[in-house]
Amino acid sequence: MDILNYIAESFSNITFLKVIDFIGTFAFAISGIRLASAKRFDWFGAYVVGAATAIGGGTLRDVMLDVPVFWMHDGIYLFCTGLALVWVIMFRRHLVHMHNTFFVFDAVGLALFTIVGIQKTLDCNLPIWVAIVMGTMTGAAGGVIRDVLINEEPLIFRKEIYAMACVVGGVVFGICDWFGTPVEVTMLLCGTAVFLTRVLAVKYQICLPTLRAEDEEKG
Amino acid sequence: MDILNYIAESFSNITFLKVIDFIGTFAFAISGIRLASAKRFDWFGAYVVGAATAIGGGTLRDVMLDVPVFWMHDGIYLFCTGLALVWVIMFRRHLVHMHNTFFVFDAVGLALFTIVGIQKTLDCNLPIWVAIVMGTMTGAAGGVIRDVLINEEPLIFRKEIYAMACVVGGVVFGICDWFGTPVEVTMLLCGTAVFLTRVLAVKYQICLPTLRAEDEEKG
Amino acid sequence: MDILNYIAESFSNITFLKVIDFIGTFAFAISGIRLASAKRFDWFGAYVVGAATAIGGGTLRDVMLDVPVFWMHDGIYLFCTGLALVWVIMFRRHLVHMHNTFFVFDAVGLALFTIVGIQKTLDCNLPIWVAIVMGTMTGAAGGVIRDVLINEEPLIFRKEIYAMACVVGGVVFGICDWFGTPVEVTMLLCGTAVFLTRVLAVKYQICLPTLRAEDEEKG
Repeated sequence: MDILNYIAESFSNITFLKVIDFIGTFAFAISGIRLASAKRFDWFGAYVVGAATAIGGGTLRDVMLDVPVFWMHDGIYLFCTGLALVWVIMFRRHLVHMHNTFFVFDAVGLALFTIVGIQKTLDCNLPIWVAIVMGTMTGAAGGVIRDVLINEEPLIFRKEIYAMACVVGGVVFGICDWFGTPVEVTMLLCGTAVFLTRVLAVKYQICLPTLRAEDEEKG
Repeated sequence: MDILNYIAESFSNITFLKVIDFIGTFAFAISGIRLASAKRFDWFGAYVVGAATAIGGGTLRDVMLDVPVFWMHDGIYLFCTGLALVWVIMFRRHLVHMHNTFFVFDAVGLALFTIVGIQKTLDCNLPIWVAIVMGTMTGAAGGVIRDVLINEEPLIFRKEIYAMACVVGGVVFGICDWFGTPVEVTMLLCGTAVFLTRVLAVKYQICLPTLRAEDEEKG
Repeated sequence: MDILNYIAESFSNITFLKVIDFIGTFAFAISGIRLASAKRFDWFGAYVVGAATAIGGGTLRDVMLDVPVFWMHDGIYLFCTGLALVWVIMFRRHLVHMHNTFFVFDAVGLALFTIVGIQKTLDCNLPIWVAIVMGTMTGAAGGVIRDVLINEEPLIFRKEIYAMACVVGGVVFGICDWFGTPVEVTMLLCGTAVFLTRVLAVKYQICLPTLRAEDEEKG
């Protein structure tokens, strides 16, 4: 477990976490801004959609947990969204070639946001199943708010495994927690589970079953 | 008033209320899941839409009242939504024949949710008109969130008397409260008012007047 | 500065502010109800959309700041929305001729709501950049909620300078605050900046640049 503990220590290192947080926020904001640009929103609209994607899930979580909203106490999140907007404006034509990079960034962000959401909920003395819900919300609700704002059916409700990766990570967190695993290792395993579930699901095109409309299969 | 008091006592009975609460949550979740299935959402998406329909109104109320969000302290609501999902997956083809049952369940849920919303608001020492707004929100906002998530114009803004039934029940509650009616009887009468308004409105197809667009009637 | 101070004093006068608040709420509610009528919503739906437009931004702000929601402690806002509904029902055909009046009312409301949002955030001991975000949210989020409810892409993300006027006013507020300007003068200058930015942007059709879709410009 030495190597695992070593990685876990880095993982709990505050600077390392800050960097991942920044990368995740950036990737989430980019995804919002790109979809907004496809709808021909202006710069302000794109910024708002980007911010909603990046910080919407965490905001919803903090409001429901009745704790101070995280981005009001650290300017980095809104600054990072602004940077993402500048990035899209400048490198718009090259974004399509960075697809894989952003996919990995997005998955890393998803993993971190899930862990943060779970940990913050447990700190409020709420049970683990609430923490899993909140972790999933932190990771995936931003994308839902984004799709509501651009007036599309939420993508994560129809395609690919996205929010389910958070749920899988949450369950891993719960199991580790149950067995008294040190919190750093628990967080590392949870994040890995989210990341791998997401990446493998996309690579092998694994989808959840779809509910069919009631009038199908009749004929 | 003996029989009325007897019913009122049962009504204030905690087990009886639990059963109604379960039935209402189930019916609300089913309505969300069915609409999600018509949009070909996957199981996860259907679960989220079902949960949003069932607990969205109460969550909005608790966040606005700044009290702990109810479903985080009782796992029954999310469990019940899961049960509703399994139900729809298994009995999908038969759902259409259960239409009337679900309509009654939904109306019962609407009545209970309205009462809970009003009572919780009054417990926060807020005036009765805020309580009526919050009761209506508890009963009807879930349906609005559902329609926003599936990207449709909110049904309750265009068709049938739905939220207005909550308002009618709220006014009945306010009047009873004003005359110092015992709280159990007040709750019973309020619930009955919501239920009857909803059922009669559908039976006799009573609608609220529609606002016409400004350019009509010109010719 | 005598004349400026005189106006500033009137501006801080509570009755004067109440009147502006009423006018702004009325204008915002009218805008929501008119768009709801174009979608053939019924009276209840129109009322809800009107209320969401008028008080949605402030509600979001209060929930995020974790302070009591403003409209629950003063019945004037919901009453004013009701009045707006009656107004639209009665004078629907003449509304188009009052276009300019409502545009000015709306801009006045936007200015006041921005100031209120900024001041309330600063009272929570939050930094000025959070106050600017919250001021913009107070002024502009109601319109976004309105557009989500009527299932349209948010207008303020695509057309005209609207929310940016709040940002401009917020920056003016921040600069004045930095130089230690008396709070009444600061509020007056901030409000004027919002109002003028909005009016001039519409008059000279100034727009923010639009983000173009990624597949454009290729050919």
